[in-house]
Amino acid sequence: MASRSRVSLALRRARISSTPCSRPIRPLSQFRWVSTASTEDSEGVAKGTTGPSKTIKLTSETYPEIKRDSKFAEITEDHVKYLKQLLGKESAIIDGVTKDATDDIEPFNGDWMRKYRGHTKLVLKPGSTEEVSKVLKYCNDNMLAVVPQGGNSGLVGGSVPVFDEIVINMSRMNQIRSFDDVSGALVVDAGVILEVADGFLQEKNHIFPLDLGAKGSCHIGGNVATNAGGLRLLRYGSLHGSVLGIEAVLPDGTIIDDLGKLRKNNTGYDLKQLFIGGEGTLGIITGVSIMCPQRPSAVNVAFLGLESYEKVQLAFQEAKGQLSEILSAFELMDCQSQDLVQKVTGNKRPLESEHPFYCLIETSGSNSEHDNEKLEKFLEDVMEKEIVSDGVVAQGQTQVKELWGWREGVPECLGHWGGVYKYDLSIPINELYALVEETREIIHKSGLLGDTDEHPVVAVVGYGHMGDSNLHLNVAVRTYDKRVEKTLEPFVYEWIAKRSGSISAEHGLGLAKKNYIGYSRSDTMIKLMKQIKNLYDPNGIMNPYKYI
Amino acid sequence: MASRSRVSLALRRARISSTPCSRPIRPLSQFRWVSTASTEDSEGVAKGTTGPSKTIKLTSETYPEIKRDSKFAEITEDHVKYLKQLLGKESAIIDGVTKDATDDIEPFNGDWMRKYRGHTKLVLKPGSTEEVSKVLKYCNDNMLAVVPQGGNSGLVGGSVPVFDEIVINMSRMNQIRSFDDVSGALVVDAGVILEVADGFLQEKNHIFPLDLGAKGSCHIGGNVATNAGGLRLLRYGSLHGSVLGIEAVLPDGTIIDDLGKLRKNNTGYDLKQLFIGGEGTLGIITGVSIMCPQRPSAVNVAFLGLESYEKVQLAFQEAKGQLSEILSAFELMDCQSQDLVQKVTGNKRPLESEHPFYCLIETSGSNSEHDNEKLEKFLEDVMEKEIVSDGVVAQGQTQVKELWGWREGVPECLGHWGGVYKYDLSIPINELYALVEETREIIHKSGLLGDTDEHPVVAVVGYGHMGDSNLHLNVAVRTYDKRVEKTLEPFVYEWIAKRSGSISAEHGLGLAKKNYIGYSRSDTMIKLMKQIKNLYDPNGIMNPYKYI
Repeated sequence: MASRSRVSLALRRARISSTPCSRPIRPLSQFRWVSTASTEDSEGVAKGTTGPSKTIKLTSETYPEIKRDSKFAEITEDHVKYLKQLLGKESAIIDGVTKDATDDIEPFNGDWMRKYRGHTKLVLKPGSTEEVSKVLKYCNDNMLAVVPQGGNSGLVGGSVPVFDEIVINMSRMNQIRSFDDVSGALVVDAGVILEVADGFLQEKNHIFPLDLGAKGSCHIGGNVATNAGGLRLLRYGSLHGSVLGIEAVLPDGTIIDDLGKLRKNNTGYDLKQLFIGGEGTLGIITGVSIMCPQRPSAVNVAFLGLESYEKVQLAFQEAKGQLSEILSAFELMDCQSQDLVQKVTGNKRPLESEHPFYCLIETSGSNSEHDNEKLEKFLEDVMEKEIVSDGVVAQGQTQVKELWGWREGVPECLGHWGGVYKYDLSIPINELYALVEETREIIHKSGLLGDTDEHPVVAVVGYGHMGDSNLHLNVAVRTYDKRVEKTLEPFVYEWIAKRSGSISAEHGLGLAKKNYIGYSRSDTMIKLMKQIKNLYDPNGIMNPYKYI
Repeated sequence: MASRSRVSLALRRARISSTPCSRPIRPLSQFRWVSTASTEDSEGVAKGTTGPSKTIKLTSETYPEIKRDSKFAEITEDHVKYLKQLLGKESAIIDGVTKDATDDIEPFNGDWMRKYRGHTKLVLKPGSTEEVSKVLKYCNDNMLAVVPQGGNSGLVGGSVPVFDEIVINMSRMNQIRSFDDVSGALVVDAGVILEVADGFLQEKNHIFPLDLGAKGSCHIGGNVATNAGGLRLLRYGSLHGSVLGIEAVLPDGTIIDDLGKLRKNNTGYDLKQLFIGGEGTLGIITGVSIMCPQRPSAVNVAFLGLESYEKVQLAFQEAKGQLSEILSAFELMDCQSQDLVQKVTGNKRPLESEHPFYCLIETSGSNSEHDNEKLEKFLEDVMEKEIVSDGVVAQGQTQVKELWGWREGVPECLGHWGGVYKYDLSIPINELYALVEETREIIHKSGLLGDTDEHPVVAVVGYGHMGDSNLHLNVAVRTYDKRVEKTLEPFVYEWIAKRSGSISAEHGLGLAKKNYIGYSRSDTMIKLMKQIKNLYDPNGIMNPYKYI
């Protein structure tokens, strides 16, 4: 990346800044991203599975209204014997049925938020699509319920069992199958970790069209199964557009071989789309073919402070107009979220002064001189128009990562105090932040919010992908508390339904939102979805108790 | 757009050009796009329906192996009476059952290529989603087969009846329902013409994310039903990514209200995707919600001459790298296609010298100075590297349109001699043009190609969307001739299957390719597709004899 001195000068010229925003960004040593969270609390997106979870309540205890479906068989020693024979290798099975495997098996039973915990006694790790097919057929024939599991970094409890469902973990299917550097088509096993794929692509001067906080642990199969949105959607669009093909296995063992590498193929219904966002309820994705763009040679990141949500909206409109084809992210963080990140990490803030709102703007393009000029002009303009009060621009890749840390660190830091109630919502952009303010007010009025231990709620914060009208409303708590849940729900969902928003923008339904789909979908749509579920999974063995 | 003088200078500096490519582009008066085709032959993309079609053979005569399915009822006067009452208005029905409406009804029976002709006696033009629902329910209850019809500009006979299916023409549902200029979400009736929507968006400084030759007649509902690809896919991606929501009616009258305006909504299976490319075989799309990007303020077009297909590939790779985020089209035309356009239109060619291949490159961006500089540098570079032999750059919007005419005019001009065998194929890019050469050779060897009337074939040409690996292989004929068809098929399909290509990249299956889907899809996939068809349309009344 070219030197940012010109941009700094430009910022210096802006007269309206209440604080000097033109100071050179501080040296790296003061700025390193240090997590001061305890080992236990720092479990999270990065690792994806929980540590010892003895203190986490079983999902079946937290939600006593969910009952184990008696149509499913209990796992027997005979089942285990057969499945062991089928998968061959010792390492492909964690067997808590015929022997005690409690410690080994616990990470597969719980989620990283420490909110859900099942009690499976069997984890299978198939090594090939054929093995997945044989396993599923056997489970289907024997009415054994299963949970497909990728990196287990989800936020809605979709990838862990509720009761004793068999976990089918995809981590052994982790090979990159092929890459075509003319077309950009990448074909991978479902269990390839997102960061591994992106690292591979970096060497080929390409980029994975999806990026998210959990990239170090999440599987591409899981990304596709949950239709992950993430940080680059504004630029590269949704997986419904970028996924070229899918290989998946239906419960009856049928292998869907739709792993094409073509950008265009109009020959029949696009069935793969049902598996994108199907959350493992129709079958298991075993392979993914995806269109990867060329890696932008110039990436710039600016971090801005703003005085009101109205100004955030103005800044977004200006960015869309002026940065246009190079705008690759426009992220919103409120001051409450940044205060918590600062408390947990102890890192020095990017801006010297504090502001009610912060935005992170990223540009990605092919010509750093042009991109710098566009960004410089944009920053000058929004400062002059008094839309933005203060800002810094990253100098070099390390500082790009550091500034991103203030955004990407939010979910992890919020978990520091014990737990987080998470809502992932699509809302018309002009009302997006109003929900955070109203939620904060009702939580405050309920007396649940406070600095001391008798108050369960630490803070109500809002952040997210402004560019996609996608808000993450998070309520950080010292402990999960039914009173908090009752204050939040159905309040949040009703608020969303009134505005025709979505109760799950990018995280999916899983267990957490199964009962609330009616706030975003009509009865007709739900009926049609159930038809599809019944078509592909008539025995209902795939990821039961969740989704629809 | 800024003056192009700098680019011309840049081209002048390039030493390798065998012909001067730096001459200023010729004055507008010499360059106007004039169609010299006869009235009859100029019917086509622009109008979408055929003129008097007395000379066109009935589809049932051309393909005697297709039999009318006796399960469908014959239309009676009682049916007509009921449907007239239902739709109310006189103008909503063309009735060839109770009275003679032959002349009025013929345009709805035939396609613009003059290849297919049905013999419906009833055309319905519902004015609302509720009317579509009532009509479909009645037809379904009475086993009356129907054909949904938009602008009737398709290339595979999908939108015209084969026998006496009732045509449900969507032209009366032509209202723009809403537009949100912050999010870019446009909601339209299915019968809105693409060019009308784009014109509306132009006033709002936005652009429709799809563009194609038939824009003046095709309906957005038809575009979505056929998953049209077109000229902007390289930049704005496929409809599977850009369509936000769909309103559709199932044969049993169920209205699918999935007309969301949210960029992200992960609440359940994405059922709308089945209707994108469903070709009217599951239901009728009545409304579309689509994400429209901001209109680029700078659009540049260059027209280049190249000496080999290898050089075309090199130029494409350079364009992807150097023009990157502003590259919005990379179109290929072989010299045979350009010769025919020149013959039909009589227009003066953009380049003074002739070349085996031509490319049209379009850039779209937000800063004309930056875009000009990138394009200039790219052109200088490909000239210096001897990848490109000659080139011109459009000066102003009129010349942009004129250069595009040499690409967009190909399909229309090819029909000048009588008919065209059209293949719309996805092929790995390195082998893309080899198919045209091999096809030309076998047609030549068969003795079917020649300049005189006893030879049915006028020319074998290749052109298409190089940026999407999408070739249009077209065989222009004086008359449709079974010998030509037998020489071409299954040769072309087998050639594609060997390379895992697609036999229909963007035009769909319709009637033309129904029997050939097996070359691009496995038996398993076809079985699963038939399951879906049976789920939504158990009586099979929706667009029968086509698709799968």
